[in-house]
Amino acid sequence: MKTVVWETLSENQQEAILERPAVSDSQAISDAVSEVIRQVRTEADEAIKALTLKFDNVPLTSIAVKEEEIDQAVTRLGPEIKKALQQAYNNIACFHRAQKPSPVKVETMPGVYCELLTRPIERVGLYIPGGSAPLPSTVLMLAVPSQIAGCRKVVLCSPPPIADEILYVARLCGITEVYNVGGAQAVAAMAYGTETVSKVDKIFGPGNAYVTEAKQQVSNDHKGAAIDMPAGPSEVLVIADTHANPEFVAADLLSQAEHGPDSQVVLLTPCMAMAEKVSAAVAEQLNHLSRADIARQALGSSVIIIAEDLEECVEISNRYGPEHLIVQTDFPSELLPLLDNAGSIFLGAWSPESVGDYASGTNHVLPTYGYTRTYSSLGLADFSKRMTVQKLTPKGLESLAPTVEAMANAEGLDAHRNAVTIRVKALEAERKRKEEG
Amino acid sequence: MKTVVWETLSENQQEAILERPAVSDSQAISDAVSEVIRQVRTEADEAIKALTLKFDNVPLTSIAVKEEEIDQAVTRLGPEIKKALQQAYNNIACFHRAQKPSPVKVETMPGVYCELLTRPIERVGLYIPGGSAPLPSTVLMLAVPSQIAGCRKVVLCSPPPIADEILYVARLCGITEVYNVGGAQAVAAMAYGTETVSKVDKIFGPGNAYVTEAKQQVSNDHKGAAIDMPAGPSEVLVIADTHANPEFVAADLLSQAEHGPDSQVVLLTPCMAMAEKVSAAVAEQLNHLSRADIARQALGSSVIIIAEDLEECVEISNRYGPEHLIVQTDFPSELLPLLDNAGSIFLGAWSPESVGDYASGTNHVLPTYGYTRTYSSLGLADFSKRMTVQKLTPKGLESLAPTVEAMANAEGLDAHRNAVTIRVKALEAERKRKEEG
Repeated sequence: MKTVVWETLSENQQEAILERPAVSDSQAISDAVSEVIRQVRTEADEAIKALTLKFDNVPLTSIAVKEEEIDQAVTRLGPEIKKALQQAYNNIACFHRAQKPSPVKVETMPGVYCELLTRPIERVGLYIPGGSAPLPSTVLMLAVPSQIAGCRKVVLCSPPPIADEILYVARLCGITEVYNVGGAQAVAAMAYGTETVSKVDKIFGPGNAYVTEAKQQVSNDHKGAAIDMPAGPSEVLVIADTHANPEFVAADLLSQAEHGPDSQVVLLTPCMAMAEKVSAAVAEQLNHLSRADIARQALGSSVIIIAEDLEECVEISNRYGPEHLIVQTDFPSELLPLLDNAGSIFLGAWSPESVGDYASGTNHVLPTYGYTRTYSSLGLADFSKRMTVQKLTPKGLESLAPTVEAMANAEGLDAHRNAVTIRVKALEAERKRKEEG
Repeated sequence: MKTVVWETLSENQQEAILERPAVSDSQAISDAVSEVIRQVRTEADEAIKALTLKFDNVPLTSIAVKEEEIDQAVTRLGPEIKKALQQAYNNIACFHRAQKPSPVKVETMPGVYCELLTRPIERVGLYIPGGSAPLPSTVLMLAVPSQIAGCRKVVLCSPPPIADEILYVARLCGITEVYNVGGAQAVAAMAYGTETVSKVDKIFGPGNAYVTEAKQQVSNDHKGAAIDMPAGPSEVLVIADTHANPEFVAADLLSQAEHGPDSQVVLLTPCMAMAEKVSAAVAEQLNHLSRADIARQALGSSVIIIAEDLEECVEISNRYGPEHLIVQTDFPSELLPLLDNAGSIFLGAWSPESVGDYASGTNHVLPTYGYTRTYSSLGLADFSKRMTVQKLTPKGLESLAPTVEAMANAEGLDAHRNAVTIRVKALEAERKRKEEG
């Protein structure tokens, strides 16, 4: 890992150190994805079967996964992983249930009642990537909040063959619509619907460059579907002081580095000796990892920054805005009020990133690539939408009328003013009628 | 207004009736906007001055509006509109303050603490369109929540000359950075920053096709800025039963129709007589409007739908998903639990849309064009982001370890497992040391 001393860098060098690598915007991928989407929109189920044969080398007899197949997966799965997934489910459910918003209802003026209602998004689609190992944790992170939010239709797509762990979690979360389809064709199927796959309103989940591009394209089409958040390579930033355990810090850096060659790994410390100890521990631990090659590539572009003090560490972290932020200092909670622009924060020696990746209860779908400045950790809110409601009494309308009339006049909108004036006149007429009667 | 009886329509006809008109995706606009963005990114302030001369015909001496100019605007403005804007400010502040989220902190397992933190987005940009009449109400809708959320930098751009009403509201809301710049160049300046205009993280506000396209483009660039929500023509849908006042309903339809020729106006009623009365009232009221020509164009593509009963009205409304939904029925609150997919709902005879447009307290920036299915009414949440935090005690980590280890094994991620295992071993070693000592 490259080590730099922050104060010796020019402003341009500092900026370059915190710069994310450009994610290539490939025209070839964009064109290939457009073609897949076109094909799914015109040939629907037929296209799914053809594309699955082409890309996944699987001849599908059924696009939908049958109930019995899920039953069988549940039976096949070993008790240890089942127990683990159940415990993770419980913790994630606990934390996401706690996110249910309190009711918002106020009387802004006498007789003027305003309310904020939260409603589930009706139909959501969850995309679970395939690959060398199954990702049941991602199913939990997407399905649990959809279930708690009360989404009526939850669709899960994953490239075949779908692992038992994924089917087990789908069952845990009450998902009945599971489809054997991956890649851009899965995103297209959920965005537009086919004979078999239900159309959804919003699509969630990670994926490769094709899936990411497909999500982008369907979200730019108002007949397509909304998406969870922009994608980018995964990242960790660790702030460590002299009291940190270098073995722990090294293990955390490596658990990020093993994700992929493009993973971003940053260590911030005011202590040069700590930097050296962590470097040595990283080198040692690397020898025992099955994914050492991947981790080594990621570490090639990673950096250790020596800062003046913890305050400067916080400043640099806020400027970088990491997806995962691990704080291994003597009093980590004291730094919390100063920390901003992070997806998820891990406080203290006993809170490694992997607890959040799997089972502490927080969501592992997080903004990355600098999007922490404006995007949120995935949560219950992303499976819901907020509508406002207002109800005025006759008295409320009369008190508010002069305000609305003056503003409508200022904006030159007669009909806006008239919608109020006509009602006020009706109230006056009725009052007069009553007085006379 | 065209009248149709829902049950006599084929399914395709029903779908066509609820279809929004296509918003043309003009390559010319897209290219022109790309060029403006390129110019602002390379020539910064110089570009702003050149483009403002070109598009607004104003030779700028200063891009920034000076404090004294705001002072003068405040002095010039009449007391009636000031009082109205102040009242609207109070109501909007009251409703948006009520949206502050309650703290979310739970212990998901003994020793595993998870927290959801809400933090303001640091730098936001508010775009206020120019045009024939000033839009101080839009300043309120964007600036009040930014102030309550605690955004540290709030930048307002509007094409010169900026109306006194807008400067007055900027002052009310504590905005000190106001710039004489409109159109795509304003969006580009806020997204990337210039010598004078501060770069922001997220851009809010309505605008013409160029502004909308510029927002889209900068939001697709990760060095640009996030945006509030996708744009579309404004809409109202009114559900009226036999008890509704046709004059009120007509006034509400017209207050939407006067917005622009592309405004969408729909009346849903189970009562043919009501449809006729409303039609007649619309024709009569049209004669007295200064913007009758605009309203007439909008009404040309509007529709009255005769439904079987109120239940079917609700069904159709949920399917259409209007930006504004006005319910003028005998017991409007009884329908509320059934209503979904709306931006803002107006209940009962005394709640015209114009109260929400200006001053009831709700926000008038709402999803439209069918985006109500997944997007929310603008609110405090849009000026904030949510981060998660976890802190585990040694005991918490030990209880969670088997779960994380089993899941990391299932996903083939050694280093993830190791970050937990190395800590558990350290705890065991320490315990042993203590027992032996």
